Amino acid sequence: MENNSDLFVKMSLQSWETTNKRVTGLLDQLTDDQLLAEIAPGRNRGIYLLGHLIAVHDMMQPLLGTGERIYPHLEDIFISQPDRAVEELSAVKTLREQWNHISALLTEQFNKMSAADWFQKHTAVSEADFAKEPQRNKLNVLLSRTGHLSYHFGQLILLKK
Amino acid sequence: MENNSDLFVKMSLQSWETTNKRVTGLLDQLTDDQLLAEIAPGRNRGIYLLGHLIAVHDMMQPLLGTGERIYPHLEDIFISQPDRAVEELSAVKTLREQWNHISALLTEQFNKMSAADWFQKHTAVSEADFAKEPQRNKLNVLLSRTGHLSYHFGQLILLKK
Repeated sequence: MENNSDLFVKMSLQSWETTNKRVTGLLDQLTDDQLLAEIAPGRNRGIYLLGHLIAVHDMMQPLLGTGERIYPHLEDIFISQPDRAVEELSAVKTLREQWNHISALLTEQFNKMSAADWFQKHTAVSEADFAKEPQRNKLNVLLSRTGHLSYHFGQLILLKK
Repeated sequence: MENNSDLFVKMSLQSWETTNKRVTGLLDQLTDDQLLAEIAPGRNRGIYLLGHLIAVHDMMQPLLGTGERIYPHLEDIFISQPDRAVEELSAVKTLREQWNHISALLTEQFNKMSAADWFQKHTAVSEADFAKEPQRNKLNVLLSRTGHLSYHFGQLILLKK
């Protein structure tokens, strides 16, 4: 079973990439007006969910130790505050570009990481806690964010006519 | 890295169980009337998504080789056909019981599997294809179904007031 680590990292990355590509494919199909609509009456708008995903994915960089965030200003608008709390959301066009940019950047960074890198602790866990709970590694961040992305993909798809 | 196989099987199972528990917690909060409502205007009803998840999870048994399906009749109603195609859906009460039953049954079966078991091929892939694509193993079924569950969880949560 000596190659299982490589295999599992490959499976996890494939799962992330597949989900990402589905979301990108959906975004490409949705018009700006559709993205400005609510996923259901009284619920988040598509544009808010898009900004939320960009902000959460951007935050994976410091968490995995691959770089600093490139859109730190999005945290307040799209993570700390609910939809409509802030009047001025970034324009849809800008968010579309940021989604494509962060997706490509993360793919590039992930492909440089070795299987051993993925089994190291992520930066939000202490050495002591990691010694007790070795599953709190970088790969777990990837699995968890893939689930988060699937969750919101299930909502964004409701914008499609 | 000799214990990594055990570790990522543990991580994958934890991810599955966590998502499952969130869905169960949500179902326990939703009334029958809420489950009979649409997640968004003109979209699937909660009861359809619940039946769909039960049918898909039940199918994991033959796919992983842990047993035969216990609710094979749900496939036609909740997988092959869209919501409202079949008039008579199982009653909400029955579906709630089936959800709890299949969830407990899968947990029991999964906990009996060794790390080596999870890296074996699932039953829907041939030996020849598996030799070329070793990522088509049982663990990949688990990762994929966890993503599927997250996707529909993101929709079911819209039923909550």
